[in-house]
Amino acid sequence: MDIKEIQLKDLDPEAFIKDQVASISEAVGDGLAVNALSGGVDSSVVTLLGHRALGERLKTYFIENGLMREGEPQHIVDLFAEMGVKVEIVDAKDQFFGALKGVTDPEEKRDKGITNVFYKDVFGKLVKDCGANVLLQGTNYTDVEETLAGVKRQHNILEQLGIDTEAAYGYKVLEPIVQLRKPAVREVGKAVGLPEELFSRPPFPGPALAARVIGEVTPERTALVRAATTIVESELCDSGAFQYLAILHEDKVTGLRDGKRDFGHQIEVRCWESTDAVTGEPTDVPFTKLRTIADRIIAEVSGVVSVTYNIAPKPPSCIEAV
Amino acid sequence: MDIKEIQLKDLDPEAFIKDQVASISEAVGDGLAVNALSGGVDSSVVTLLGHRALGERLKTYFIENGLMREGEPQHIVDLFAEMGVKVEIVDAKDQFFGALKGVTDPEEKRDKGITNVFYKDVFGKLVKDCGANVLLQGTNYTDVEETLAGVKRQHNILEQLGIDTEAAYGYKVLEPIVQLRKPAVREVGKAVGLPEELFSRPPFPGPALAARVIGEVTPERTALVRAATTIVESELCDSGAFQYLAILHEDKVTGLRDGKRDFGHQIEVRCWESTDAVTGEPTDVPFTKLRTIADRIIAEVSGVVSVTYNIAPKPPSCIEAV
Repeated sequence: MDIKEIQLKDLDPEAFIKDQVASISEAVGDGLAVNALSGGVDSSVVTLLGHRALGERLKTYFIENGLMREGEPQHIVDLFAEMGVKVEIVDAKDQFFGALKGVTDPEEKRDKGITNVFYKDVFGKLVKDCGANVLLQGTNYTDVEETLAGVKRQHNILEQLGIDTEAAYGYKVLEPIVQLRKPAVREVGKAVGLPEELFSRPPFPGPALAARVIGEVTPERTALVRAATTIVESELCDSGAFQYLAILHEDKVTGLRDGKRDFGHQIEVRCWESTDAVTGEPTDVPFTKLRTIADRIIAEVSGVVSVTYNIAPKPPSCIEAV
Repeated sequence: MDIKEIQLKDLDPEAFIKDQVASISEAVGDGLAVNALSGGVDSSVVTLLGHRALGERLKTYFIENGLMREGEPQHIVDLFAEMGVKVEIVDAKDQFFGALKGVTDPEEKRDKGITNVFYKDVFGKLVKDCGANVLLQGTNYTDVEETLAGVKRQHNILEQLGIDTEAAYGYKVLEPIVQLRKPAVREVGKAVGLPEELFSRPPFPGPALAARVIGEVTPERTALVRAATTIVESELCDSGAFQYLAILHEDKVTGLRDGKRDFGHQIEVRCWESTDAVTGEPTDVPFTKLRTIADRIIAEVSGVVSVTYNIAPKPPSCIEAV
């Protein structure tokens, strides 16, 4: 590919920020830019770069797709308000769950359920309505690399796949951090003024919790994996791991409820050691901690009778399950 | 229930053996008895008790249902030959897989797929053809207790559920070890002359590997879980754990094959600390050992991209998955 990586060792964060702010200013001119903030480090960095370049001429939306962490939309809006950046929450839960209804195929989930709804139905309309001529997007170097290699279909890769965004969606796409991998993005985030909670938070997948529900993604099933995610994140946030997550399986397994044989849900916990998500090793989490996590999930997430911990590396596994 | 448990602390193995041998002799009279040997400690003990009482007038069959461990039928026959007990292998693979075809419901798998084929089609015929008037069965105290409590439908509980075996199947059922839980059965096994491999081997479920395949049980899917079982048993046989097993999930998860995104199988490993299978705790297996098991399963079992380890206790989990 013709994008040149800036490696962490070669990164001068201040110079990088200056360059990107200048590029954004030049591309937008007297116009408006728009971006979607998910609360992950990538889109958070892009939001601050765009805000530094354009101030109020950057419109930032948080798309509430119903697939985010517990309490996430308001929490992210509050964090950015403290930095002087206004973020608008757009409630699109019904549109996403409508598109995801009955969809169980993983690729279809990402494409039909997430990408199309996001770009065409929800965000595409917002971009047109707000009159922006530029869309700022948080694509990073690993996203591009994995999509081109066929490893994963990132929802934010379009031009690299030969899709003309201006023709297809009506706006130009700018990708300020496309030359950086995650550790470099975090460095820029620190330098540009993100609070530590945001620049050091574990990666969250593009399709959000839909990437952690095997089988159909319904509001009810999403609520189960969201509750398990809260527990896993609170128990492992001090682990120093690259990423940690909970997955809801479609398989039901035999369990006991009130002393009777019954069938219940299984939650899988994963915790990864990685620098760039390209390869990963499961973390050697102390067994007592794993047992605490399992006990909490069983006690706090309705209908769960079984909890497992991933012990396979990537490859051949992936970080997420979908 | 009106069966009185003999607790391990109250057990006199030699006296128990003498009593049971006498009971079997009396019940069979001048007739013949028949039993099915699975190779588990329960049916192995019953086989030796019956052989001591009746000698050649006990006909012992090993039903090859296609659902046993790798190389199991011949291995068990060889072990019993060394003890002077003749065991006949009956190939019923096609009958079992025929009945299991398309069946995914766990209860139906046990009832229609295993119990009916075993008692009515395969073993019932053998019992009639060999002219036996008594069937010796390895039901233990935990089996009865769990079946009556609705926890689990054991395939070898009939009279306790109000089924008249003489009317339904044409023979009288004798259950020599029905007052014993597993640790007591092992003590009797040791005293009656079983080799250590047999009296100390981990429990194996009645429905065999069908209890470890979520979804349809086909010869191909059984082969996958059989291969994983061989690896788990060889790696954990020195762990001192109560039981250890591999489960094939029906869920497919995202993986990487030859650098491309692909969907593959997930194998779940379980290893239990327990004394009687009524309650259990997952074993704190060293993480390096878990990683070895995962790496071997990925390398040796075709199509597996993900391996997990159970971290939930029983209850609410069960020992097996089906």
